Amino acid sequence: MLFDPLDVVGIGNAIVDVIASADDAFLSEHGMRKGTMALIDEPQAETIYAAMGAAVVTSGGSAGNTVAGIASFGGRTGFIGKVRDDALGREFRHDITAVGAHFPTPAANGGPATARCLVLVTPDSQRTLNTFLGAAASLGPDDVDAAMIRAAAITYLEGYLYDAPSAQRAFHIAAEIAHGAGRKVALSLSDPFCVVRHRVEFLHLIDHHVDVLFGNRAEIAELFETDRLETAIARLRSLTEIVAITSGPDGSTIVTQDDVIDVATERAGGVVDTTGAGDLYAAGVLFGLTHGLPLRECGRLGSFAAAEVISHFGARPQTNLRALAAKRGHLLGSE
Amino acid sequence: MLFDPLDVVGIGNAIVDVIASADDAFLSEHGMRKGTMALIDEPQAETIYAAMGAAVVTSGGSAGNTVAGIASFGGRTGFIGKVRDDALGREFRHDITAVGAHFPTPAANGGPATARCLVLVTPDSQRTLNTFLGAAASLGPDDVDAAMIRAAAITYLEGYLYDAPSAQRAFHIAAEIAHGAGRKVALSLSDPFCVVRHRVEFLHLIDHHVDVLFGNRAEIAELFETDRLETAIARLRSLTEIVAITSGPDGSTIVTQDDVIDVATERAGGVVDTTGAGDLYAAGVLFGLTHGLPLRECGRLGSFAAAEVISHFGARPQTNLRALAAKRGHLLGSE
Repeated sequence: MLFDPLDVVGIGNAIVDVIASADDAFLSEHGMRKGTMALIDEPQAETIYAAMGAAVVTSGGSAGNTVAGIASFGGRTGFIGKVRDDALGREFRHDITAVGAHFPTPAANGGPATARCLVLVTPDSQRTLNTFLGAAASLGPDDVDAAMIRAAAITYLEGYLYDAPSAQRAFHIAAEIAHGAGRKVALSLSDPFCVVRHRVEFLHLIDHHVDVLFGNRAEIAELFETDRLETAIARLRSLTEIVAITSGPDGSTIVTQDDVIDVATERAGGVVDTTGAGDLYAAGVLFGLTHGLPLRECGRLGSFAAAEVISHFGARPQTNLRALAAKRGHLLGSE
Repeated sequence: MLFDPLDVVGIGNAIVDVIASADDAFLSEHGMRKGTMALIDEPQAETIYAAMGAAVVTSGGSAGNTVAGIASFGGRTGFIGKVRDDALGREFRHDITAVGAHFPTPAANGGPATARCLVLVTPDSQRTLNTFLGAAASLGPDDVDAAMIRAAAITYLEGYLYDAPSAQRAFHIAAEIAHGAGRKVALSLSDPFCVVRHRVEFLHLIDHHVDVLFGNRAEIAELFETDRLETAIARLRSLTEIVAITSGPDGSTIVTQDDVIDVATERAGGVVDTTGAGDLYAAGVLFGLTHGLPLRECGRLGSFAAAEVISHFGARPQTNLRALAAKRGHLLGSE
């Protein structure tokens, strides 16, 4: 297949989110650590689902959410990730193609079911994730669509992919293809425990293959095993070009060789569910980077997209971000 | 099975909602009438789904939504409706039982898939419904759990049930069991076109079997083929005990033999999706009626529940209505 130029191709776990409200007691009863992601198997997924409240089901997955966000800004996108040929797999495919993303990865005809993430939203609007990786873990090197990656200005990889060995290989191949074609590679650190699991590999990757890095303060702290942000920033500058560090309600910081740019959060109508905040922040930044916007404006688009997604249940935008951003006076850059 | 006393048993189409944003052009392109419900077959459902945007999937069905609302107020509830033993059917069952409702109706092991309603939300927050009835239409007399109905102070029937012949029979049997046990029967008129389809039968039903009637102004107008509300109210008074007439943003009117009580809408944070507004209004009123509240307070609880549900995508509450209502100073009546 030939592709017209794309802005961003995302590679990640193809996951459907199952979201319900829960109280703190529910989390501790089920041994969950608030605000983080835990990997679970299918029987655990069934047990938690049976115990949790009435749910809203909607496509998710970190890179999938970011791709949906970029598409909502009007960006040209693709996605690589593995579903099964089951009901949730069809739902994931519908939703990612409905926003206009290319999604060439074939569904698995056998093996585990489409991945699910059971999302518990506590009254403080924090989200706690329980992921059954299922079919997503079977993403392999053969699924990496080289033509699509070569067509994309930026290939965006989610750190969560590192939790499955064959997806790891796909991850490396994708990064090599992108750089071989003179394109950029972006990485999200995904989750502090994910960083703990793969610290050495992530540092190696960032040094050799990553041009744009996304992470929150907890993830950056785990990466360098330090709470001192200045120390981490100095180390990051020697490893990669652009680093965007999010700090929840305190905004974000974009670091380059020459600059440290602090970006405020966008005032949201109300915070209902923080799921997808980091993913949509990355969407705004990546859209800005691929549309010639100054870094500060990229950061502002990130804050803007995050504010929309935390105002409702679900990790993908429910409004057209391009139209809403234009209305709010945001720059949207060159076509 | 033996049941402790219940407040409300709902009987309705067991439906999963698939909700997406759409513009007015999409509606006219697909021949949809804004704000109403159209019955579609499975191929039409596939065609519309393929064309519509990224979706949020969540349990729905008019009576199901009302039951979920009553349960969220702390009411004791049951539901009768038919799903298939498929993924959407399991989702429906999870969600209705997760709120604490009894749901004794077995899933169909064959035949059409679980019912889906494709909900298009336009920028004016109006919802347009396209329902593939599927397994829901096979609800039959054998599914009417007599013990559960006898245990319930009110049996609540949705008018939409009248669109399927075997569900109609279930409907009548349920009403007879309820009245035979000295219980009350409530009916929702569901949709103006549903009233057009079944006007004569509905009038007969209301006269003989309905103690509490819910409808919006368009439905009441269709029922008596008059735009004059006073004429309709006079007729209704000779047919039934209590009538609650909703007027969208203009509030509602509760009519009894002696009284006409106007109830304002509750100021909502913002209107995102009006799906479920009528269902949740009914939930508030029915909870109030079964908890010894004066009619005006019943209406206020209805307005309150409707305001919550229109503030987000999806037709069921995403917050605990009992806790939120108490915080806002609403009366919640006797246990």
